Amino acid sequence: MAEFEIHHQLRADCHYLCTLERSHLLLHRNAVVFWLVLVPETDVTELHDLNESQFREIMTLIKKLAEFAKHYDKADKINIATLGNIVPQLHIHIIARKKSDPCWPDAVWGKLETRTVYTEENIATLKTMLRNTFATNTS
Amino acid sequence: MAEFEIHHQLRADCHYLCTLERSHLLLHRNAVVFWLVLVPETDVTELHDLNESQFREIMTLIKKLAEFAKHYDKADKINIATLGNIVPQLHIHIIARKKSDPCWPDAVWGKLETRTVYTEENIATLKTMLRNTFATNTS
Repeated sequence: MAEFEIHHQLRADCHYLCTLERSHLLLHRNAVVFWLVLVPETDVTELHDLNESQFREIMTLIKKLAEFAKHYDKADKINIATLGNIVPQLHIHIIARKKSDPCWPDAVWGKLETRTVYTEENIATLKTMLRNTFATNTS
Repeated sequence: MAEFEIHHQLRADCHYLCTLERSHLLLHRNAVVFWLVLVPETDVTELHDLNESQFREIMTLIKKLAEFAKHYDKADKINIATLGNIVPQLHIHIIARKKSDPCWPDAVWGKLETRTVYTEENIATLKTMLRNTFATNTS
């Protein structure tokens, strides 16, 4: 595969956090909900088309990230989804939902109209937490 | 665990299709999109709280069902999600999306207003296909 590039729409919508094995972890810029986006390095667009070893690796990452998000944001519920109707590049949403968030209990897509932003300090703290949890490269 | 019962809201929204290992496969009654719902027999509400062996089993099922849905409905894209903000019982949506469906490219939740129904024959055919693909009990 040619050098992997994260889709421009995901780059526009998200902060870059770190690499995790052969995936990239992003943070949605809208800080109203704690919303991670995992982008595996693949040109496959459907989760079920991943080969067995990639599939297992990514599922294990999703499990760990969901657990991380639940505790990091003291979430009431974790929402996990892979849609790809607009951005074809395979990406998985891991979203920490709270009963107090502005679109609870609806799904966030097309429903999250409130908008706040992260500070640089917020992102630095998150990267440190990820580094401690996943022993990963957050440079 | 006491005898497992599928949540009344899922029973109201879906047809029962079959058991697959230790999960129940449902079909959303709205036939506008081909929408499967997998309900694992567990009292855990978060995917990441499943033990390793249940998690692997369910992920493998999701992969097979996504592949099945893609071919069965000649889908343009498979959407997979576990939300659980309204129905707390763990359930996974596997939805075959088409560029021609009435809410493409939006996510279906809260957006799918058109409604059609399956005939008994549609459901019988689907059960046969599932039986042939998964060698399972569709009684």
